[in-house]
Amino acid sequence: MVRENEIRPSEVAVDPPPATDAGLVFIGVIRTPWGSRLLTPRQGRADGPVCRIEIFDPWREALQGVEAFERLEVLYWLHLSRRDLVRQSPASDGTSRGTFALRSPVRPNPIGTAIVTLAGVEGSTLLVRGMDCVDGTPLLDLKPDRALFKPIAPPQPGDFEVG
Amino acid sequence: MVRENEIRPSEVAVDPPPATDAGLVFIGVIRTPWGSRLLTPRQGRADGPVCRIEIFDPWREALQGVEAFERLEVLYWLHLSRRDLVRQSPASDGTSRGTFALRSPVRPNPIGTAIVTLAGVEGSTLLVRGMDCVDGTPLLDLKPDRALFKPIAPPQPGDFEVG
Repeated sequence: MVRENEIRPSEVAVDPPPATDAGLVFIGVIRTPWGSRLLTPRQGRADGPVCRIEIFDPWREALQGVEAFERLEVLYWLHLSRRDLVRQSPASDGTSRGTFALRSPVRPNPIGTAIVTLAGVEGSTLLVRGMDCVDGTPLLDLKPDRALFKPIAPPQPGDFEVG
Repeated sequence: MVRENEIRPSEVAVDPPPATDAGLVFIGVIRTPWGSRLLTPRQGRADGPVCRIEIFDPWREALQGVEAFERLEVLYWLHLSRRDLVRQSPASDGTSRGTFALRSPVRPNPIGTAIVTLAGVEGSTLLVRGMDCVDGTPLLDLKPDRALFKPIAPPQPGDFEVG
């Protein structure tokens, strides 16, 4: 079971600095079948239920052309997650590992990423499969899946650097 | 050439709401060979130069176990990017498309994502290949590549839902 907000044996919390280095704007909301963190998938699946990504004004015009991509990368704000754990115990078994070695929603900056398949577009709402978040999760960004996107800008020197 | 901060013909800017819905903390810094946006790769490459991801206190302990993953997902803050364009013209050719149909750094929430290969660990610094950002870019998050990570938490009902 996912945590509500408890700390488990072997976990380590820190006293984090204030989260004021940069600010986010919620650009939409994600509608899923899961009303509680205790029900959500641990990871999305490509054959999962269709979820709705609703885009707010003034960002709707930014959707133009998105229908050309079969898969999208979605970034969202895990608004229910604590942010202060550096070691976590997902199995609650007395062992823990570092937050950066986990895909847990509990992170210093609780940003989730998903690769979804686009099932349809209804006005400024996208229908997608592959989400794993609770209903009402704030949306941060949408991009074409990196594997499907070819840069349009002219080449830059760094494009050709290997090491 | 990437933009400095100009608006090009056919692009559309909006008057965005204040970016105060949530706050970020910079957890580290990314050191790359590219001192200007005019030099950076448009996308990272797996055989690109080794870059350094330096983790700040108090987050260093969160690295424990990260060396087990050959590839990591990196989230970073594109601190030089404007945030108000909903249509962009990467080719500067008089045509534009929606921001969400591009992987441009110019976005309402300018968060970059990269999949990098881990080339080494030196204390609280990771050596990685595959970055595409300017030197000094603030770090937001590190996670195992989704394809390499198996959830440790016990199964949840949503894991089994298809649609």
